[in-house]
Parts: sequence; C-alpha cells; structure tokens
Amino acid sequence: MTATASSPSANASGFPVLSDLEIARAATLRPIDEIAASAGIPADALELYGRYKAKIDVGRLPAPGPLGQVVLVSAISPTPAGEGKSTLTVGLADSLARAGKRTMIALREPSLGPILGMKGGATGGGHSQVLPMEDINLHFTGDFHAITAANNALCALVDNHIFQGNALGIDPRRVAVRRVMDMNDRSLRDIVTGLGGPGQGVPRETGFDITVASEVMAVFCLASSVADLRERLGRITVGYTYARQPVTAADLGAAGVMAMLLKDAFKPNLVQTIAGTPALVHGGPFANIAHGCNSALATMTARRLADVVVTEAGFGADLGAEKFIDIKARYADVAPAAVVLVATVRALKMHGGVPKDQLTAPDTAAVERGFENLVRHVENVRKFGLEPVVALNRFGTDTAEELETVLRLSRSAGVRAAIADVWGRGGGSDGGDELAREVLAALESPGTCRPLYPLELGVEEKIATLVREVYRGAAVEYSEQARRTLAQIRENGWNGLPVCMAKTQYSFSDNPALLGAPEGFTVHVRELWPRTGAGFIVAVTGQIMTMPGLPKEPAAMRMDLDDQGRVTGLF
Amino acid sequence: MTATASSPSANASGFPVLSDLEIARAATLRPIDEIAASAGIPADALELYGRYKAKIDVGRLPAPGPLGQVVLVSAISPTPAGEGKSTLTVGLADSLARAGKRTMIALREPSLGPILGMKGGATGGGHSQVLPMEDINLHFTGDFHAITAANNALCALVDNHIFQGNALGIDPRRVAVRRVMDMNDRSLRDIVTGLGGPGQGVPRETGFDITVASEVMAVFCLASSVADLRERLGRITVGYTYARQPVTAADLGAAGVMAMLLKDAFKPNLVQTIAGTPALVHGGPFANIAHGCNSALATMTARRLADVVVTEAGFGADLGAEKFIDIKARYADVAPAAVVLVATVRALKMHGGVPKDQLTAPDTAAVERGFENLVRHVENVRKFGLEPVVALNRFGTDTAEELETVLRLSRSAGVRAAIADVWGRGGGSDGGDELAREVLAALESPGTCRPLYPLELGVEEKIATLVREVYRGAAVEYSEQARRTLAQIRENGWNGLPVCMAKTQYSFSDNPALLGAPEGFTVHVRELWPRTGAGFIVAVTGQIMTMPGLPKEPAAMRMDLDDQGRVTGLF
Repeated sequence: MTATASSPSANASGFPVLSDLEIARAATLRPIDEIAASAGIPADALELYGRYKAKIDVGRLPAPGPLGQVVLVSAISPTPAGEGKSTLTVGLADSLARAGKRTMIALREPSLGPILGMKGGATGGGHSQVLPMEDINLHFTGDFHAITAANNALCALVDNHIFQGNALGIDPRRVAVRRVMDMNDRSLRDIVTGLGGPGQGVPRETGFDITVASEVMAVFCLASSVADLRERLGRITVGYTYARQPVTAADLGAAGVMAMLLKDAFKPNLVQTIAGTPALVHGGPFANIAHGCNSALATMTARRLADVVVTEAGFGADLGAEKFIDIKARYADVAPAAVVLVATVRALKMHGGVPKDQLTAPDTAAVERGFENLVRHVENVRKFGLEPVVALNRFGTDTAEELETVLRLSRSAGVRAAIADVWGRGGGSDGGDELAREVLAALESPGTCRPLYPLELGVEEKIATLVREVYRGAAVEYSEQARRTLAQIRENGWNGLPVCMAKTQYSFSDNPALLGAPEGFTVHVRELWPRTGAGFIVAVTGQIMTMPGLPKEPAAMRMDLDDQGRVTGLF
Repeated sequence: MTATASSPSANASGFPVLSDLEIARAATLRPIDEIAASAGIPADALELYGRYKAKIDVGRLPAPGPLGQVVLVSAISPTPAGEGKSTLTVGLADSLARAGKRTMIALREPSLGPILGMKGGATGGGHSQVLPMEDINLHFTGDFHAITAANNALCALVDNHIFQGNALGIDPRRVAVRRVMDMNDRSLRDIVTGLGGPGQGVPRETGFDITVASEVMAVFCLASSVADLRERLGRITVGYTYARQPVTAADLGAAGVMAMLLKDAFKPNLVQTIAGTPALVHGGPFANIAHGCNSALATMTARRLADVVVTEAGFGADLGAEKFIDIKARYADVAPAAVVLVATVRALKMHGGVPKDQLTAPDTAAVERGFENLVRHVENVRKFGLEPVVALNRFGTDTAEELETVLRLSRSAGVRAAIADVWGRGGGSDGGDELAREVLAALESPGTCRPLYPLELGVEEKIATLVREVYRGAAVEYSEQARRTLAQIRENGWNGLPVCMAKTQYSFSDNPALLGAPEGFTVHVRELWPRTGAGFIVAVTGQIMTMPGLPKEPAAMRMDLDDQGRVTGLF
C-alpha cells in the first residue's frame, strides 16, 4: 500500500505524522531467536540472517500436532484510494495475539522493482508493520535473487541447447520461458537476443519479466516439499518443438540445478511485527498472472506453530481469495476457516461513483451505493463455503455517519463487521480488538471450504463457471489465438488443471472502469498460458504487464544512505 | 581451479580419491562466532548468516592498532595445466597459522555463472579449502546479487531517463553501461532492447555482461569506506550526450540508491578453512577487464585483525600482481610485504613446449626451458620493490628430479623457493611448513612496495611503460577507435587514471600461443574503456569476453539435491 493511502489518520489526529520508516525505526525489536523460541521453534531449526531475520529448517520442527486455523484476509475490489490490506493483516494478527491466541502471520515478500519505482512496500504501514522493514523491502534473505537465478539458469540452458545443436528440436520461435529481473525495466519487455553472428547464439524475439511473474516463483509458492518443488520445476514447459510437442525443464535436465539454486531460499523466513507477533514472510508471486499469495510451505509451517494463522491474498476476493481456494488450497493443506474482507469508506465511495480527488468530502449516499461491491464479495465468499467478516479499515477523514452506515448495511446483509484502527494505533493497542473478537467468533463455527469447480471440468468450462458465478458476466469471448491454445491444452492433457485468471483487479469485469457490481458484461480471453510446473492455466484478459516500467521521477532517486550508513528515503 | 588440475596426487597415492565436496563435507566446522572470537572480532560486530557464515560490521571493530603484513599470492603465466593458486593461498595461510602466526585469508567470492558452466569453483581444493564450500560457491551471502541489482537499477534509470524525455540529452547509441547477470549466457551478449513501440522504450543495441565484469563490482572492490563507495558509484560514466559530454551516475541521481542496495553486501564475509583459519571472502571482479582481487575493505579489515594476511590476485604476476600494486594498493592501504609466485612442474613443462596431453611423462629438460617464464615474473616482482618466494605446488605426477630442478634453478636465480603439498595433505598438516618458513623469512625483511609508473604519466605512456618493463614487448599499436578514445580521455581529464590491461593471461604478449618468455612483440590496443567510477582505464587487447557461454554439456546438468536436500554434483 502507498503512504498516501495509509496515512490519512494524520489529518484527524493533528499530531506530527511519522513516516513508516520512522515508526519502524523507533520500534524495539526482540532478537529473532527469542521470537522463535516463543513460537515453539527449536534453536537448531533456526538459521540466523543477522539479528532480526532467520530461516526455518522445517525438517527440524517438532512433529506436527493439531494444525492452526487459517484466516484469509481479502478485500473488496481495490481502488486507487487504497484499502490497507497488508496493514490490516498485521494489525489483526497483533490483536489476536493480544487476545491470547497463539498467532502467526504468513505474508508475501515484497518485490524490489516496484519499490524502486513508486513509493511503497508490502510490509504493512503505520503501527502495523513487519520488521526490519528496510531489510524485508530490499534484498531480505535473498529469496527473490535465488528465484531469479533459477529462472535464468533455465533460460540459459534452453538457449544453449538450441545453440549446441538443438537435439530436442526446440523451435526458437516457440520458447515459452522468458528471463526475469527483480527490477522495473520497460526496455527489457521486448528484445531480440542472440545477435552478433553464429558464435553468439541463435537470434530470437523474447523479453524479460519481473521476477514475481516467473513461473519459478509460482512453483516455489505452491510446492509443499523439496521433492514437490523439484518435480514441479521439472514439469515447467520451456517451449515447443518444430512438431509442436511440449519440451519440459526435465527434458533439458534442468530440474536438479534449479532445485539446488532454490535450496536455501525455500526455507520460510521468520520476522516479527512491531508488537512482536511472529511472521513468516516468504515468496511473492504476481496476483494477476499467478495466484498472488505467500508460499504454501510458509502457510503450512505457520499452521504447525500457531492456533491462528493470518494470511493475505492479492487484489479483491474475486481474484485473490478465489485463487487461494481454487489453486493454493488444492495443492496444500491451507484451506481457510474464515475470510476477512477489508473495506474502507473511501474505496466504497469510489465504487459509489465519487472521483478520487473528492473522497475527503463526506458522502453517505455514495457509501451506500458503493456497498454493492462489498455485498457481491460477501456472496462470493459464501460460495466457497466460508463466512466473511468485514473489516472496515478506518481512515482519518471518515465521518461517524459513514462508518456507521457500513456497519449497518453489513448487519442487514447478515455479515459480521467491525471497525479497525490498526494503522494509527497498531494491533498492539485496542485498535483491532473488536475485529479480533468478530474473527474469533467466526472461527468458533468455521466454514467448510470448497473449491468453486471440480478439476474434471475442462479449462473452458472452468472459465465459464468463474465468469458466471464470481464475476457475474454474461459471456466469455476467446481470441483466435486463445482458441488455438485451448485445443493445444486438450491435446497435451492439461485440461484438468485449475485456471488462474489474469484480469484487472479494479472491476469484477475485464474493464477497469466498471466499478461497483456490474452484470451482463462479456469477458474477453486474449491468451492462455499453460503453466504446467505451477499447475494452472493462466487466462489473460485485457493487457497484462509482466514487466513494469519506472515513472518519470522514480522513488529510487530519493533513496540514499545517511552519514551512519542507514537507509533514507525508502518510504 | 579445476578438479582435474588440482587432483593429480590421487594417482600417486593409490588411495581412493575424494572429491572436493566430499572432503569439505567430512570436515568439522566450528561455529562462525567462535572463529570470530578467536580472530578478535567482537560479537556485536558480527551478523550471522546461518551457523558458518557471518558479515562483519567494520565500524564495530576495535580501533586499529599495528596493521598486519600482506602476502600476495600470484603465479607464473597460467596454462591449461592449472597452478592451484587458490588452493595454495588457503594452504599457505593454514601453514602460517600452524607456525603460530595470527593469520587471516582475503579471497575473492566465486561467480555462479562459470560454476554452472564448467566444473570448478574458487574456494581452493583438496584439503585446502574455505568452507562451507557449497554456500560460498552458490549464493553465499548474496553480495553478487546485490551488485547485480545495483548495476541493473542504474541501467534501468538510464533507459528510463531517455524514455521520459531525456533531459540530459544522452545519446542512446553511446550508453556506456550494460546490464549484468551472474550467469554464463551467450545469447545476452548482443541484444536489441526497447522494442515494441513508443510505449516500451527507445530501441538500442546493447548487451549483458557477467556480474563480475560490472564496473559496480570493481567499484565495490576498490572502495575503502561507505562514503568512498557512494562517491565512486556517482563517478561511473553511464554514457555520453549528443555533444559527446560524459554523463555520470551522479548526474542521474542514481548514486544514493546504488549505495543503498549495496549497504549490507559491502560488509566483508567471514568464513573458515578446513583447518579453522579465518578467511574473509568478499568481492570478485574479473581479472582481465578489472583488477581481479577481493575487496579492498576485506584486505584492510584482515590487516586490522591479523599479523599476516594472505591474499590472491588473478592470473599471472604480469596481470594480477601488477594491478594489485598499480591499482588496488594506490587506492587502499594494502601494499604487500612479500609476493608468492605459484608454479607447478606441469605448467613449466608447458612453457617449455610440452603439449597438454603429454604432461605426465617426466621431462626435466622441458622444465628447464619453461623456467624462463618464472624468471621473468621474478624479475618483474622485483621491479615493484618486492622479493618473491617461489611456491612449487606439488602434483602426484611430478618426479623428484623435476621438482629438484625447479628448486635448484630458483636458488641460482637468487630467489627463495619451497615445495608445497597442501592439496593432498592440507595446510593443517606439514605439507606447507617449508613454504611458510620461507615466507616468514621473507617477511622478516619486507620489501618497500612501489608502483611501476607515476600517475602523472598519460595513459599512452603508462601503457608503453607496462609493455616495455613488464611484458618486454617492442611496441604498442592502437586501433583507430582506441586513438579516438585516447583523445577523449585527455579532453575529459581522465589521463591521470591508472591503466587496467585486458590481455590474455597465457602469455606476456597479447598472443596466447606465445608461452615462455617472449620478446620483441607488438601489443595491439583495440579499445580503451574509461572506468571513471572504479578509477582506471581498461586497455583491451585481443578479444575479451565479458559474458561467457555454456559448454555443450554444462556442469549445471549434473547438479541436484539428494534425498536429504543436500547438494550433489557441484564438484
């Protein structure tokens, strides 16, 4: 989330506003081995990375007992106003810990590229942050670098295979893997490689994606063991032969070296919140072309260590929660017991038609109109057999009447709801107590999570089900190319894979301008990308950017070190 | 060095041969905090990375007292037979420690790319290795990844500047920085980026280098403090305007973010040898287009902690030792007190005209002929005011007569010499005792190190001095392009920088086939690359590869994890 979105409390309080970095630095961290001990992690399962970060060797944990309940934090359809989902996740966990529950957080690792581009990280904000935030937002324990290396080793092996005689007959025009870099670098989107003559390679069109868009990242986050990781890496389709037969990483003999390069990265990272709640921050695939949540291994590990695990999925519940249940929870034992839907008065106003620059003016009628977006997500969550809890993330400009309206409408829709003020006061204060109570009440009678569709349905029918049941569209249209890929998916035996929709997060439809709760629209599937290693088919609607660019004034240009070698300008 | 080169003792001993990885795994490592304590590093200056690696916060070390003496390990002109310089460095340090000296090693970090390409790492071999070798040879503490990120952030900022209006007027055809990746990937040598239309960038020709070839790596390894690091990063020339004026990283506002990305990487890494000697393994620039030794900060830190610091420079003494003295020792307080010249019977035979496949046959006459290469290096080392010690690295196929011939010829040249057997028996045994005695004797009357040329000489005269005094060539020829760059160097005020020769390591000349001690040849300077951040001018002779390729059967394809998640096939 951005500082702009998360800091409006400042205006209301009248106190000088501290930046996220200043708040983080003022916090007193406990040595990470103390945090580990309090979470029941034995010392010999801990690999320290400095004083406040550690990796967990899951094989050295005590044998699993009863597993903790998973609380999935999702949201209404996001708006440029910001919802503060990561902040809420951290604050809720702190509040649950305050209520006496053994609680653990499972969160995604931030990607360096966007941090250097626009101001903003992914470690929460205000008084609800995971620490040390500078480290987590920069190289952390090197996981993304290892994923980058594994991905790029695969690509180098593919091009080298083609160069060295191409025994497998890979069509250079049909290589399916792209190199990655954890950087916002638009110049690398479309490139030609292998130039310079016969000694330098075979020229072909390709490009770089950002690391979080790599299939290796998705594999990393869905694998439940090292053996599973290696298997999935081997199943990655690297391209097609001249006869259009798929070639896998295993065919190239590349699965072993990739697993080797990911050996340490695959161990979950332990850190802490400002309030001292243990947090596993591990993995971070894109929420559009991948499933958008932290590693399955981290969530499963947290379930072994805590009674309640608070975790987050990307974007709104139509994307993040759906993928969590239809993809991640099929491959790993992480089914949620409850879903929290984060909403804000500001975002509901936008769904009710208010432009972004007029959000500070009180407008209860707009809140009421925009509530239809929240209702739609509530209905959708119930389709997965789960009962949502609405978390109304309080901002300084919200009026009492606006806040009360959301609570009243929620109650009349028969859904639990609570106001949370965890940004301004932190989960260690009472700002999240009411939300924690509602969540605990929901966990008393947990739902029975079920996927939306059976895997036996073909890819086309899975997409149709999603569009009908979750998005409420009237039809699906396929491009010529997508139709051809559908046929290829059937021929190659991939029709039983779940679907990963790459759709705008701003609307239930594939048109980002259609806010609220639209109906009757057509969803356009432009391309289908088989991700046979991760184990899903990406359905691309609209234009999806897999390599972001830098803005005119990149945040990077304000970043520096001060006289004492400390980071400045990061947030 | 390669396993082939370092393992011939096996044939002689008749015992089953253990691989480097097996020997490494059989070793008992001490916890790194114990090693640190034994080296006088206070606990609060230590940042643990797992149990056996740590970074040192130099600012928390005790105030410097008398500085330790530097022993620079160099070699005769390398041959495909291998000299075992890293192994010798480790073994010598172990032997010095065995002799009761407070000893510390300063070594380069290995680059991942070549490890995945050809079998072989850079952590020594046999019983003379730094550990944990799997970690050091793979991601280690992430330094190279951080350097990659800093380099590529700069490149992204350059292209973004051009894309976003190009206020500085950078000529896209004259961008001087290239992106890097720590991978052997020939397809990235020559590429066209920014394709795809006006929204995707400005098309231009460029390419990727391997990370160790990055100027950021050279800067990292020559900076003596964080402030110096930031200054040097800012001085990197990123390209030229349409009016041919240089544009720096500081002009772009990129120095701060680059320094920030290198903040943790810049702290030296502490590990240990099999015998328990503390080793700082930090930084690793190319030895051709850069100066080829570990970070200045690591060498300076080791001098604060030990009486003797054993360190290594790349290639033979005509390149590595020359650059150590003319570049590194000008920028940092690391002047050697003695130089060790590693030689092997096998390599001397090659310099004496024996082909590689006939090296196992005894041939004392060839050893005598090849000795001229060693003599030349001895003379050169003396030109720097230093007295060399010849270390004859013993291989199993060496005959007593061959070994004795080298010792006899060395004595008649008035130079100290000793046989070392540290590969087969380790520096912890008595295999390096004799060499240690000779080195300690040399340190009793240390030389006074002086550079070969004063900085006031112009670049052209510096190159002429090097060719005349060190290489013994008759003339230097410049290409048209190199002549133009010479003029530009004078105009831009860079004529006072030292020179970094990029020349084949196999010969004193620029022709790799001229072994022994050639004279009368002409050196051809093809290009000059100003490296204003690192602070030298690279003079490129012959074809220099800044991005290696993978062989037909990459070593990567044999690497894997076993059932217990341990690395296999790495060495």
